[in-house]
Amino acid sequence: MTYCVAMNLAEGLVMASDTRSNAGMDNISTFCKMHRFDIEGDRRITLLSAGSLATTQDLVNRLRLEVERTSKETLSSVPTMFEAAFLVGNTLREIMKNSPKVEGVDFSATFLLGGQIQGEGTRLFLIYPEGNFIEATQETPFFQIGESKYGKPIIDRVLTYETTLAQALTCTLISYDSTVKSNLSVGLPIDTLVQYKDRCLNNNNYERIEEGHEYLVKVRESWANGLSNVFNELPKPHWLK
Amino acid sequence: MTYCVAMNLAEGLVMASDTRSNAGMDNISTFCKMHRFDIEGDRRITLLSAGSLATTQDLVNRLRLEVERTSKETLSSVPTMFEAAFLVGNTLREIMKNSPKVEGVDFSATFLLGGQIQGEGTRLFLIYPEGNFIEATQETPFFQIGESKYGKPIIDRVLTYETTLAQALTCTLISYDSTVKSNLSVGLPIDTLVQYKDRCLNNNNYERIEEGHEYLVKVRESWANGLSNVFNELPKPHWLK
Repeated sequence: MTYCVAMNLAEGLVMASDTRSNAGMDNISTFCKMHRFDIEGDRRITLLSAGSLATTQDLVNRLRLEVERTSKETLSSVPTMFEAAFLVGNTLREIMKNSPKVEGVDFSATFLLGGQIQGEGTRLFLIYPEGNFIEATQETPFFQIGESKYGKPIIDRVLTYETTLAQALTCTLISYDSTVKSNLSVGLPIDTLVQYKDRCLNNNNYERIEEGHEYLVKVRESWANGLSNVFNELPKPHWLK
Repeated sequence: MTYCVAMNLAEGLVMASDTRSNAGMDNISTFCKMHRFDIEGDRRITLLSAGSLATTQDLVNRLRLEVERTSKETLSSVPTMFEAAFLVGNTLREIMKNSPKVEGVDFSATFLLGGQIQGEGTRLFLIYPEGNFIEATQETPFFQIGESKYGKPIIDRVLTYETTLAQALTCTLISYDSTVKSNLSVGLPIDTLVQYKDRCLNNNNYERIEEGHEYLVKVRESWANGLSNVFNELPKPHWLK
Protein backbone atom coordinates (compact mmCIF):
# COMPACT_ATOMS: atom_id res chain seq x y z
CA MET A 1 0.00 0.00 0.00
CA THR A 2 0.95 3.66 -0.08
CA TYR A 3 -0.14 6.95 1.35
CA CYS A 4 0.30 10.19 -0.61
CA VAL A 5 -1.18 13.59 0.14
CA ALA A 6 -0.96 16.94 -1.64
CA MET A 7 -2.38 20.36 -0.83
CA ASN A 8 -2.69 23.46 -3.00
CA LEU A 9 -3.08 26.45 -0.68
CA ALA A 10 -2.91 30.26 -0.84
CA GLU A 11 0.89 30.21 -0.38
CA GLY A 12 1.56 27.26 -2.69
CA LEU A 13 1.92 23.48 -2.65
CA VAL A 14 2.74 20.80 -0.10
CA MET A 15 3.25 17.26 -1.43
CA ALA A 16 4.27 14.10 0.41
CA SER A 17 4.60 10.38 -0.24
CA ASP A 18 5.71 7.40 1.80
CA THR A 19 8.19 4.86 0.41
CA ARG A 20 6.86 1.45 1.32
CA SER A 21 6.06 -1.03 -1.40
CA ASN A 22 4.74 -4.45 -0.61
CA ALA A 23 3.68 -7.52 -2.49
CA GLY A 24 2.10 -9.41 0.37
CA MET A 25 3.16 -9.05 4.00
CA ASP A 26 6.50 -10.77 3.52
CA ASN A 27 7.81 -8.86 0.55
CA ILE A 28 8.41 -5.31 1.66
CA SER A 29 10.78 -2.89 -0.01
CA THR A 30 11.46 0.82 -0.35
CA PHE A 31 10.63 2.79 -3.49
CA CYS A 32 10.42 6.53 -3.98
CA LYS A 33 6.92 7.49 -5.11
CA MET A 34 7.73 11.16 -5.69
CA HIS A 35 8.82 11.87 -9.27
CA ARG A 36 10.04 15.34 -10.16
CA PHE A 37 10.10 17.00 -13.56
CA ASP A 38 11.79 20.37 -13.08
CA ILE A 39 13.26 23.01 -15.38
CA GLU A 40 14.95 25.66 -13.29
CA GLY A 41 13.21 29.03 -13.62
CA ASP A 42 10.41 27.67 -15.81
CA ARG A 43 8.51 24.83 -14.15
CA ARG A 44 8.41 22.49 -11.16
CA ILE A 45 6.14 19.50 -11.71
CA THR A 46 5.85 16.62 -9.25
CA LEU A 47 4.01 13.33 -9.64
CA LEU A 48 3.05 11.15 -6.65
CA SER A 49 1.97 7.57 -7.33
CA ALA A 50 -0.12 4.90 -5.59
CA GLY A 51 -0.94 1.46 -6.95
CA SER A 52 0.85 -1.12 -9.06
CA LEU A 53 4.58 -0.38 -9.03
CA ALA A 54 4.98 -1.84 -12.53
CA THR A 55 2.37 0.56 -13.87
CA THR A 56 3.74 3.64 -12.07
CA GLN A 57 7.31 2.93 -13.16
CA ASP A 58 6.12 2.38 -16.71
CA LEU A 59 4.34 5.72 -16.65
CA VAL A 60 7.26 7.67 -15.20
CA ASN A 61 9.70 6.13 -17.68
CA ARG A 62 7.46 6.91 -20.64
CA LEU A 63 7.05 10.49 -19.43
CA ARG A 64 10.83 10.87 -19.18
CA LEU A 65 11.70 9.06 -22.42
CA GLU A 66 9.27 11.09 -24.51
CA VAL A 67 11.31 14.13 -23.53
CA GLU A 68 14.35 12.78 -25.33
CA ARG A 69 13.01 10.56 -28.07
CA THR A 70 9.98 12.15 -29.66
CA SER A 71 8.87 15.53 -30.83
CA LYS A 72 5.53 15.11 -29.09
CA GLU A 73 4.37 17.34 -26.26
CA THR A 74 6.17 16.46 -23.00
CA LEU A 75 6.06 17.54 -19.37
CA SER A 76 8.97 19.85 -20.26
CA SER A 77 7.08 21.53 -23.07
CA VAL A 78 3.38 21.67 -22.13
CA PRO A 79 2.40 25.30 -21.50
CA THR A 80 -0.05 24.66 -18.61
CA MET A 81 -0.52 22.25 -15.71
CA PHE A 82 -3.89 21.26 -17.18
CA GLU A 83 -2.11 19.96 -20.28
CA ALA A 84 0.43 18.23 -18.04
CA ALA A 85 -2.43 16.38 -16.32
CA PHE A 86 -3.96 15.57 -19.70
CA LEU A 87 -0.63 14.14 -20.89
CA VAL A 88 -0.22 11.99 -17.78
CA GLY A 89 -3.82 10.75 -18.08
CA ASN A 90 -3.39 9.84 -21.74
CA THR A 91 -0.10 8.03 -21.13
CA LEU A 92 -1.79 6.09 -18.31
CA ARG A 93 -4.65 5.08 -20.64
CA GLU A 94 -2.15 3.73 -23.18
CA ILE A 95 -0.38 1.69 -20.51
CA MET A 96 -3.63 0.27 -19.11
CA LYS A 97 -4.80 -0.74 -22.61
CA ASN A 98 -1.91 -3.23 -22.79
CA SER A 99 -1.81 -4.06 -19.09
CA PRO A 100 -1.96 -7.80 -18.23
CA LYS A 101 -5.45 -9.06 -17.33
CA VAL A 102 -5.25 -11.41 -14.37
CA GLU A 103 -8.32 -12.37 -12.32
CA GLY A 104 -8.05 -10.87 -8.82
CA VAL A 105 -4.87 -8.86 -9.50
CA ASP A 106 -5.12 -5.10 -9.77
CA PHE A 107 -2.56 -3.40 -12.01
CA SER A 108 -4.16 0.02 -11.73
CA ALA A 109 -2.57 3.15 -10.29
CA THR A 110 -3.66 6.59 -9.14
CA PHE A 111 -1.62 9.81 -9.26
CA LEU A 112 -1.35 13.26 -7.74
CA LEU A 113 0.18 15.83 -10.09
CA GLY A 114 1.13 19.19 -8.63
CA GLY A 115 3.35 22.05 -9.65
CA GLN A 116 3.74 25.41 -11.25
CA ILE A 117 4.57 26.39 -14.84
CA GLN A 118 5.67 29.96 -15.42
CA GLY A 119 2.64 32.12 -16.21
CA GLU A 120 0.25 30.16 -13.95
CA GLY A 121 -0.15 29.74 -10.20
CA THR A 122 0.47 26.41 -8.49
CA ARG A 123 -2.11 23.75 -9.45
CA LEU A 124 -2.94 20.27 -8.22
CA PHE A 125 -4.66 17.35 -9.96
CA LEU A 126 -5.82 13.90 -8.95
CA ILE A 127 -5.52 11.49 -11.89
CA TYR A 128 -7.74 8.40 -11.70
CA PRO A 129 -6.71 4.92 -12.89
CA GLU A 130 -8.97 5.48 -15.93
CA GLY A 131 -6.90 8.50 -17.00
CA ASN A 132 -9.47 11.22 -16.28
CA PHE A 133 -8.73 13.75 -13.56
CA ILE A 134 -10.01 16.46 -11.21
CA GLU A 135 -8.37 19.65 -9.92
CA ALA A 136 -8.19 20.86 -6.32
CA THR A 137 -10.07 24.09 -5.51
CA GLN A 138 -10.17 26.54 -2.61
CA GLU A 139 -13.11 24.62 -1.11
CA THR A 140 -11.32 21.27 -1.45
CA PRO A 141 -7.66 22.18 -1.36
CA PHE A 142 -6.21 18.72 -0.71
CA PHE A 143 -6.23 15.23 -2.22
CA GLN A 144 -5.09 11.91 -0.79
CA ILE A 145 -4.41 8.62 -2.57
CA GLY A 146 -3.72 5.14 -1.23
CA GLU A 147 -4.28 4.33 2.44
CA SER A 148 -5.87 7.69 3.18
CA LYS A 149 -8.49 7.11 5.87
CA TYR A 150 -6.38 6.97 9.04
CA GLY A 151 -4.72 10.29 8.23
CA LYS A 152 -7.78 12.18 7.00
CA PRO A 153 -9.42 13.33 10.28
CA ILE A 154 -6.46 15.49 11.34
CA ILE A 155 -6.35 17.20 7.92
CA ASP A 156 -10.13 17.71 7.98
CA ARG A 157 -9.78 19.33 11.38
CA VAL A 158 -6.96 21.81 10.81
CA LEU A 159 -6.46 22.50 7.10
CA THR A 160 -8.02 25.38 5.18
CA TYR A 161 -6.94 27.16 2.00
CA GLU A 162 -5.40 29.91 4.16
CA THR A 163 -3.22 27.57 6.26
CA THR A 164 0.49 28.45 5.92
CA LEU A 165 2.69 25.94 4.09
CA ALA A 166 4.77 25.48 7.25
CA GLN A 167 1.66 24.46 9.21
CA ALA A 168 0.35 22.38 6.32
CA LEU A 169 3.62 20.44 6.32
CA THR A 170 3.36 19.88 10.08
CA CYS A 171 -0.23 18.69 9.61
CA THR A 172 0.98 16.34 6.85
CA LEU A 173 3.56 14.77 9.15
CA ILE A 174 0.96 14.20 11.88
CA SER A 175 -1.31 12.64 9.28
CA TYR A 176 1.52 10.25 8.33
CA ASP A 177 2.30 9.54 11.96
CA SER A 178 -1.34 8.49 12.58
CA THR A 179 -1.33 6.32 9.45
CA VAL A 180 1.98 4.60 10.17
CA LYS A 181 0.84 3.81 13.75
CA SER A 182 -2.37 2.15 12.51
CA ASN A 183 -1.29 0.47 9.26
CA LEU A 184 1.82 -1.58 8.57
CA SER A 185 1.63 -1.10 4.82
CA VAL A 186 2.60 2.58 5.03
CA GLY A 187 6.18 3.21 6.15
CA LEU A 188 8.92 5.78 6.58
CA PRO A 189 10.89 7.51 5.11
CA ILE A 190 8.48 10.17 3.84
CA ASP A 191 9.45 12.39 0.90
CA THR A 192 8.13 15.93 1.36
CA LEU A 193 8.13 18.91 -0.96
CA VAL A 194 7.06 22.48 -0.21
CA GLN A 195 6.69 24.90 -3.14
CA TYR A 196 6.05 28.57 -2.39
CA LYS A 197 4.11 30.03 -5.33
CA ASP A 198 6.44 31.77 -7.86
CA ARG A 199 9.44 31.46 -5.54
CA CYS A 200 9.51 27.71 -6.26
CA LEU A 201 10.49 28.18 -9.89
CA ASN A 202 14.08 28.89 -8.81
CA ASN A 203 14.14 27.04 -5.56
CA ASN A 204 12.36 24.34 -3.63
CA ASN A 205 12.10 22.74 -0.25
CA TYR A 206 12.55 19.00 -0.61
CA GLU A 207 13.15 17.01 2.56
CA ARG A 208 13.27 13.28 3.15
CA ILE A 209 11.93 12.46 6.63
CA GLU A 210 13.60 9.32 7.94
CA GLU A 211 12.82 7.56 11.23
CA GLY A 212 14.61 9.64 13.88
CA HIS A 213 14.49 12.87 11.81
CA GLU A 214 14.94 15.65 14.38
CA TYR A 215 11.77 17.53 13.42
CA LEU A 216 9.60 14.43 13.17
CA VAL A 217 10.71 13.31 16.63
CA LYS A 218 9.89 16.73 18.10
CA VAL A 219 6.47 17.01 16.43
CA ARG A 220 5.51 13.43 17.26
CA GLU A 221 6.37 13.91 20.93
CA SER A 222 4.74 17.35 21.29
CA TRP A 223 1.61 16.09 19.51
CA ALA A 224 1.31 12.91 21.56
CA ASN A 225 1.82 14.79 24.84
CA GLY A 226 -0.47 17.64 23.85
CA LEU A 227 -3.22 15.24 22.75
CA SER A 228 -2.91 13.23 25.92
CA ASN A 229 -3.19 16.39 28.05
CA VAL A 230 -6.25 17.59 26.16
CA PHE A 231 -7.83 14.14 26.47
CA ASN A 232 -7.22 13.95 30.23
CA GLU A 233 -8.81 17.38 30.72
CA LEU A 234 -12.03 16.48 28.87
CA PRO A 235 -15.25 16.48 30.92
CA LYS A 236 -16.41 13.03 32.12
CA PRO A 237 -19.71 11.46 30.99
CA HIS A 238 -22.10 12.54 33.76
CA TRP A 239 -24.65 9.71 33.49
CA LEU A 240 -22.43 6.78 34.47
CA LYS A 241 -23.47 5.07 37.67
CA MET B 1 -21.98 1.58 6.07
CA THR B 2 -21.68 1.36 9.84
CA TYR B 3 -19.17 1.95 12.56
CA CYS B 4 -19.18 -0.16 15.74
CA VAL B 5 -16.53 -0.34 18.42
CA ALA B 6 -16.26 -2.35 21.64
CA MET B 7 -13.63 -2.47 24.36
CA ASN B 8 -13.10 -4.98 27.15
CA LEU B 9 -10.99 -3.30 29.84
CA ALA B 10 -9.96 -3.86 33.46
CA GLU B 11 -13.16 -2.20 34.73
CA GLY B 12 -15.51 -3.79 32.19
CA LEU B 13 -17.04 -3.16 28.78
CA VAL B 14 -17.74 -0.17 26.54
CA MET B 15 -19.79 -0.81 23.40
CA ALA B 16 -21.07 1.62 20.79
CA SER B 17 -22.79 1.58 17.41
CA ASP B 18 -24.02 4.22 15.00
CA THR B 19 -27.51 4.03 13.47
CA ARG B 20 -27.11 4.87 9.80
CA SER B 21 -28.15 2.34 7.22
CA ASN B 22 -27.82 3.07 3.55
CA ALA B 23 -28.52 1.32 0.29
CA GLY B 24 -26.78 3.74 -2.02
CA MET B 25 -26.31 7.44 -1.32
CA ASP B 26 -29.98 8.30 -1.78
CA ASN B 27 -31.54 5.70 0.46
CA ILE B 28 -30.53 6.51 4.01
CA SER B 29 -32.42 5.40 7.08
CA THR B 30 -31.95 4.87 10.80
CA PHE B 31 -31.66 1.41 12.36
CA CYS B 32 -30.44 0.43 15.79
CA LYS B 33 -27.44 -1.89 15.48
CA MET B 34 -27.19 -2.61 19.20
CA HIS B 35 -29.15 -5.70 20.23
CA ARG B 36 -29.41 -6.57 23.90
CA PHE B 37 -30.10 -9.96 25.49
CA ASP B 38 -30.34 -9.37 29.23
CA ILE B 39 -31.57 -11.36 32.20
CA GLU B 40 -31.47 -9.17 35.29
CA GLY B 41 -28.96 -10.45 37.84
CA ASP B 42 -27.72 -13.27 35.60
CA ARG B 43 -26.40 -11.96 32.27
CA ARG B 44 -25.99 -8.90 30.07
CA ILE B 45 -25.16 -9.79 26.47
CA THR B 46 -24.99 -7.24 23.67
CA LEU B 47 -24.57 -7.79 19.95
CA LEU B 48 -23.39 -5.04 17.59
CA SER B 49 -23.83 -5.59 13.86
CA ALA B 50 -22.26 -4.32 10.63
CA GLY B 51 -23.12 -5.44 7.11
CA SER B 52 -26.27 -6.54 5.30
CA LEU B 53 -29.29 -5.38 7.30
CA ALA B 54 -31.33 -8.36 6.05
CA THR B 55 -28.71 -10.75 7.41
CA THR B 56 -28.30 -9.00 10.76
CA GLN B 57 -32.07 -8.77 11.34
CA ASP B 58 -32.42 -12.42 10.40
CA LEU B 59 -29.73 -13.34 12.93
CA VAL B 60 -31.18 -11.26 15.75
CA ASN B 61 -34.69 -12.63 15.14
CA ARG B 62 -33.50 -16.23 15.11
CA LEU B 63 -31.54 -15.65 18.32
CA ARG B 64 -34.67 -14.23 19.99
CA LEU B 65 -37.14 -16.78 18.57
CA GLU B 66 -35.06 -19.75 19.63
CA VAL B 67 -35.52 -18.49 23.17
CA GLU B 68 -39.26 -19.07 22.95
CA ARG B 69 -39.75 -21.84 20.41
CA THR B 70 -37.12 -24.49 20.86
CA SER B 71 -35.46 -26.33 23.64
CA LYS B 72 -32.05 -25.78 22.10
CA GLU B 73 -29.33 -23.76 23.79
CA THR B 74 -30.09 -20.02 23.59
CA LEU B 75 -28.38 -16.78 24.57
CA SER B 76 -30.51 -16.95 27.74
CA SER B 77 -29.27 -20.40 28.68
CA VAL B 78 -25.64 -20.73 27.54
CA PRO B 79 -23.37 -20.91 30.59
CA THR B 80 -20.44 -18.90 29.16
CA MET B 81 -19.79 -16.04 26.74
CA PHE B 82 -17.66 -18.39 24.64
CA GLU B 83 -20.73 -20.56 24.06
CA ALA B 84 -22.74 -17.44 23.29
CA ALA B 85 -20.22 -16.52 20.57
CA PHE B 86 -20.30 -20.11 19.28
CA LEU B 87 -24.11 -19.98 19.09
CA VAL B 88 -24.10 -16.66 17.21
CA GLY B 89 -21.42 -17.94 14.81
CA ASN B 90 -23.37 -21.14 14.10
CA THR B 91 -26.64 -19.28 13.54
CA LEU B 92 -24.81 -16.94 11.14
CA ARG B 93 -23.42 -19.94 9.21
CA GLU B 94 -26.93 -21.34 8.81
CA ILE B 95 -28.22 -18.01 7.50
CA MET B 96 -25.34 -17.59 5.05
CA LYS B 97 -25.83 -21.12 3.70
CA ASN B 98 -29.25 -20.06 2.35
CA SER B 99 -28.32 -16.45 1.61
CA PRO B 100 -29.10 -15.23 -1.96
CA LYS B 101 -26.13 -15.38 -4.32
CA VAL B 102 -26.04 -12.26 -6.47
CA GLU B 103 -22.94 -11.22 -8.40
CA GLY B 104 -21.49 -8.04 -6.93
CA VAL B 105 -23.86 -7.87 -3.94
CA ASP B 106 -22.53 -8.64 -0.49
CA PHE B 107 -25.00 -10.13 1.98
CA SER B 108 -22.39 -10.80 4.64
CA ALA B 109 -22.30 -9.32 8.13
CA THR B 110 -19.82 -9.00 10.99
CA PHE B 111 -20.61 -8.82 14.70
CA LEU B 112 -19.21 -7.75 18.04
CA LEU B 113 -20.54 -9.76 20.97
CA GLY B 114 -19.79 -8.50 24.46
CA GLY B 115 -21.16 -9.10 27.88
CA GLN B 116 -20.98 -10.87 31.17
CA ILE B 117 -22.63 -14.07 32.37
CA GLN B 118 -22.65 -14.71 36.12
CA GLY B 119 -19.53 -16.68 37.08
CA GLU B 120 -17.30 -15.10 34.43
CA GLY B 121 -15.81 -11.66 33.91
CA THR B 122 -16.82 -9.45 30.99
CA ARG B 123 -15.75 -10.86 27.61
CA LEU B 124 -15.72 -9.55 24.06
CA PHE B 125 -15.75 -11.41 20.73
CA LEU B 126 -15.49 -10.41 17.09
CA ILE B 127 -17.55 -12.78 14.92
CA TYR B 128 -16.53 -12.95 11.27
CA PRO B 129 -18.98 -13.30 8.35
CA GLU B 130 -17.85 -16.94 8.09
CA GLY B 131 -19.07 -17.64 11.63
CA ASN B 132 -15.69 -18.14 13.29
CA PHE B 133 -14.57 -15.66 15.92
CA ILE B 134 -11.75 -14.19 18.03
CA GLU B 135 -11.71 -12.85 21.59
CA ALA B 136 -10.24 -9.56 22.81
CA THR B 137 -7.26 -9.80 25.19
CA GLN B 138 -5.37 -7.41 27.47
CA GLU B 139 -2.88 -6.71 24.65
CA THR B 140 -5.65 -6.05 22.13
CA PRO B 141 -8.57 -4.90 24.25
CA PHE B 142 -10.74 -3.40 21.50
CA PHE B 143 -12.39 -4.39 18.21
CA GLN B 144 -13.95 -2.28 15.50
CA ILE B 145 -16.23 -3.33 12.65
CA GLY B 146 -17.48 -1.41 9.61
CA GLU B 147 -15.99 1.95 8.67
CA SER B 148 -13.24 1.72 11.27
CA LYS B 149 -10.19 3.47 9.85
CA TYR B 150 -11.00 7.16 10.45
CA GLY B 151 -11.68 6.51 14.13
CA LYS B 152 -8.79 4.14 14.85
CA PRO B 153 -5.85 6.55 15.38
CA ILE B 154 -7.40 8.24 18.44
CA ILE B 155 -8.12 4.85 20.06
CA ASP B 156 -4.60 3.62 19.23
CA ARG B 157 -3.21 6.74 20.89
CA VAL B 158 -5.10 6.79 24.18
CA LEU B 159 -6.60 3.39 24.99
CA THR B 160 -4.96 0.72 27.14
CA TYR B 161 -6.44 -2.13 29.17
CA GLU B 162 -6.17 0.07 32.29
CA THR B 163 -8.11 3.03 30.86
CA THR B 164 -11.21 3.80 32.96
CA LEU B 165 -14.59 3.11 31.37
CA ALA B 166 -15.48 6.81 31.66
CA GLN B 167 -12.39 7.75 29.66
CA ALA B 168 -12.91 4.88 27.22
CA LEU B 169 -16.42 6.16 26.52
CA THR B 170 -15.07 9.68 25.94
CA CYS B 171 -12.45 8.23 23.57
CA THR B 172 -15.23 6.32 21.79
CA LEU B 173 -17.22 9.51 21.21
CA ILE B 174 -14.16 11.30 19.79
CA SER B 175 -13.55 8.32 17.54
CA TYR B 176 -17.15 8.63 16.26
CA ASP B 177 -16.82 12.38 15.86
CA SER B 178 -13.74 11.92 13.63
CA THR B 179 -15.53 9.25 11.60
CA VAL B 180 -18.75 11.20 11.12
CA LYS B 181 -16.77 14.28 10.01
CA SER B 182 -14.90 12.29 7.34
CA ASN B 183 -17.50 9.80 6.13
CA LEU B 184 -21.14 10.41 5.27
CA SER B 185 -22.12 6.76 5.63
CA VAL B 186 -21.72 6.81 9.43
CA GLY B 187 -24.26 8.95 11.26
CA LEU B 188 -25.71 9.92 14.61
CA PRO B 189 -27.40 8.97 16.89
CA ILE B 190 -24.86 6.68 18.55
CA ASP B 191 -26.00 3.97 20.96
CA THR B 192 -23.56 3.54 23.84
CA LEU B 193 -23.38 1.00 26.63
CA VAL B 194 -21.03 0.91 29.60
CA GLN B 195 -20.94 -2.25 31.74
CA TYR B 196 -18.94 -2.20 34.95
CA LYS B 197 -17.78 -5.75 35.65
CA ASP B 198 -20.14 -7.60 38.09
CA ARG B 199 -22.06 -4.40 38.85
CA CYS B 200 -23.58 -4.59 35.36
CA LEU B 201 -25.57 -7.74 36.12
CA ASN B 202 -28.12 -5.64 38.02
CA ASN B 203 -27.64 -2.37 36.33
CA ASN B 204 -26.28 -0.81 33.16
CA ASN B 205 -25.40 2.47 31.59
CA TYR B 206 -27.13 2.75 28.24
CA GLU B 207 -27.23 6.16 26.59
CA ARG B 208 -28.33 7.21 23.13
CA ILE B 209 -26.21 10.14 21.92
CA GLU B 210 -28.25 12.30 19.55
CA GLU B 211 -26.99 15.33 17.64
CA GLY B 212 -26.97 18.16 20.19
CA HIS B 213 -26.53 15.78 23.19
CA GLU B 214 -25.14 17.99 25.96
CA TYR B 215 -22.07 15.84 26.63
CA LEU B 216 -21.24 15.28 22.97
CA VAL B 217 -21.39 19.02 22.32
CA LYS B 218 -19.06 19.70 25.26
CA VAL B 219 -16.54 17.00 24.34
CA ARG B 220 -16.56 17.91 20.66
CA GLU B 221 -15.90 21.56 21.43
CA SER B 222 -13.23 20.95 24.08
CA TRP B 223 -11.49 18.44 21.83
CA ALA B 224 -11.54 20.65 18.73
CA ASN B 225 -10.25 23.67 20.71
CA GLY B 226 -7.64 21.64 22.57
CA LEU B 227 -6.37 20.03 19.37
CA SER B 228 -6.21 23.34 17.61
CA ASN B 229 -4.21 24.88 20.49
CA VAL B 230 -1.77 21.96 20.55
CA PHE B 231 -1.39 22.16 16.77
CA ASN B 232 -0.70 25.91 16.83
CA GLU B 233 1.99 25.42 19.49
CA LEU B 234 3.91 22.78 17.52
CA PRO B 235 7.45 23.67 16.41
CA LYS B 236 7.76 24.85 12.79
CA PRO B 237 9.78 22.92 10.16
CA HIS B 238 13.21 24.61 10.36
CA TRP B 239 14.43 23.87 6.82
CA LEU B 240 11.85 25.87 4.84
CA LYS B 241 13.37 28.78 2.89
